[in-house]
Amino acid sequence: MTAEPAETLRDIGETAVLQRIFPRLPQADAALVGPGDDAAVIAAPDSRIVITTDTMVHGPDFRTAWSTPYDLGWKAAATNLADVAAMGATPTALVVALTIPADTPVADLEAFADGMREACAALARGCGVVGGDLGVSPTFTIAVTAIGDLVGGDPVLRSGARPGDVVAVAGQLGLAAKGLALLFARGVDREGVPDARRARNLRSRFPAEVSAQLAPRPPIYAGPVAALSGATAMLDVSDGLLLDARRIAQASGVTIDLATEGTGVAEVLHGGEDHALLACFPGTADVPPPFRVIGRVLPVAPGSDPGVTVDGAAADERGGWDPYAEWAGGAG
Amino acid sequence: MTAEPAETLRDIGETAVLQRIFPRLPQADAALVGPGDDAAVIAAPDSRIVITTDTMVHGPDFRTAWSTPYDLGWKAAATNLADVAAMGATPTALVVALTIPADTPVADLEAFADGMREACAALARGCGVVGGDLGVSPTFTIAVTAIGDLVGGDPVLRSGARPGDVVAVAGQLGLAAKGLALLFARGVDREGVPDARRARNLRSRFPAEVSAQLAPRPPIYAGPVAALSGATAMLDVSDGLLLDARRIAQASGVTIDLATEGTGVAEVLHGGEDHALLACFPGTADVPPPFRVIGRVLPVAPGSDPGVTVDGAAADERGGWDPYAEWAGGAG
Repeated sequence: MTAEPAETLRDIGETAVLQRIFPRLPQADAALVGPGDDAAVIAAPDSRIVITTDTMVHGPDFRTAWSTPYDLGWKAAATNLADVAAMGATPTALVVALTIPADTPVADLEAFADGMREACAALARGCGVVGGDLGVSPTFTIAVTAIGDLVGGDPVLRSGARPGDVVAVAGQLGLAAKGLALLFARGVDREGVPDARRARNLRSRFPAEVSAQLAPRPPIYAGPVAALSGATAMLDVSDGLLLDARRIAQASGVTIDLATEGTGVAEVLHGGEDHALLACFPGTADVPPPFRVIGRVLPVAPGSDPGVTVDGAAADERGGWDPYAEWAGGAG
Repeated sequence: MTAEPAETLRDIGETAVLQRIFPRLPQADAALVGPGDDAAVIAAPDSRIVITTDTMVHGPDFRTAWSTPYDLGWKAAATNLADVAAMGATPTALVVALTIPADTPVADLEAFADGMREACAALARGCGVVGGDLGVSPTFTIAVTAIGDLVGGDPVLRSGARPGDVVAVAGQLGLAAKGLALLFARGVDREGVPDARRARNLRSRFPAEVSAQLAPRPPIYAGPVAALSGATAMLDVSDGLLLDARRIAQASGVTIDLATEGTGVAEVLHGGEDHALLACFPGTADVPPPFRVIGRVLPVAPGSDPGVTVDGAAADERGGWDPYAEWAGGAG
């Protein structure tokens, strides 16, 4: 008995693939006209919309030996939802441009849609996919654009932090980087090429770390909560706490002083992709759960530039988070 | 004297590249918060937005020997603007996800931005780029999402054509396909590989045809004009007149009868990428310029299915428009 070859995009064509995928995609409550016309129409009750786009590319951003198609759909949704949430907005709709090799199995695309659907259901109920584009490419590329509604509030920018504010974070820090370090170290074969079996075994043994990397669960609901609670500045921690805190400091013209005692932040200054929300609140405000205080906003000291200190001392200048860039392992 | 090597994305990094590109991108009148935060905020005065996404991939969708970076920026904007216009909406904002090889010259990205800016200025003044993403990929891929405002009108869908309507088109038909046929035939070297010098020469000799293919000028303003004039159905003709007319016929449950006499449509039934607007108007309405009547909407004949006839006779079943798919020439 031989296995049936998997049915691919090339076998059945774009139209048939879309018919298979559409029913699995999440519905958007805000959709007035859904997929199938030249464009979708969605409700924007606030009369302003928040919009962001983020791309994941096979190779630079993910390995198919490590990420299942379901993971990719989940992560593509979650990371874009987090950018909307970081403005204090409620995500309402996604559009998805997928460009994939023609020999991609249709079952992978169905699993991708399942991942998007379940991420929306778990993280941003009511948000759904209202449109997209499916094309052929040698390089599997996922470009998602997300839209959100501000529900009457002001957008929370990076530039609003003021001395006297407290600094707080919602969501996990550090787990995604630990997961990726595990995958780099032990999710590869003897030649250093990403290996699906080893990755699955790692995920069973370290589910929190590996899942935080491959299918993150950022606290999307906390974004609008922060806005309602008077957050003065906020962003999505995607490149590491130190680097992203510096972005708020520089945009706001302040010093952000992170406190290590009792916060655990000393262990998680670097290492990205957590998609936690980092926010500043007026010192007089109650910081709403799930935010927890990890520092405070200070004036810039005379002779200094806006930036980040840790327990009052200048933080090192290591920035950035591009773990694949310098990795010599195989393509996977 | 040796030429300086071109400065690339790899040389100067994403942040510096973005600083070079941002000033060249078109500003959006509707931008309340522009690029630089987790997301942009744009005005949606109608309280509904139109949204569409479309991708161009090196190889399946364009050849860099034929399209300049400026052309690519222009076309990526124009095709997405056309999808917004085809809903009867006025384009307000674009977001652009570019994933490119690390050795792409920065000057190419600047020219790409110039093309987007000038396309918006020429075709949809006031629409601009409010955000984006720049990443590294082995395959040059351009994913654009466009947003539009309905300005109080109803969206014009594909499904609203009714017997008694007239069928009209705004914009060019057939030129883009002629341009591509010229490029396939004479824009290649002896081995069939796309050749930049030959393409430039062709463009000087056949500027209308080649430019219609590489940098189309769809009549974006005609979309809202059609909506205000009571258009019952509309779409962007991207896959050829016959196939796209059939889409309206099937969505609306009607027959669309195209007339060849005096319309020139017999020559342009196939061949896509014109991004003309095909619309239906009530037979009693004045058809607004620049639309010109090319047919009429009829009931479906007993025993027939919704579809397209030409001068009352069933049109052939040839559909689709994927000129690169079966082409054996080199990658260029």
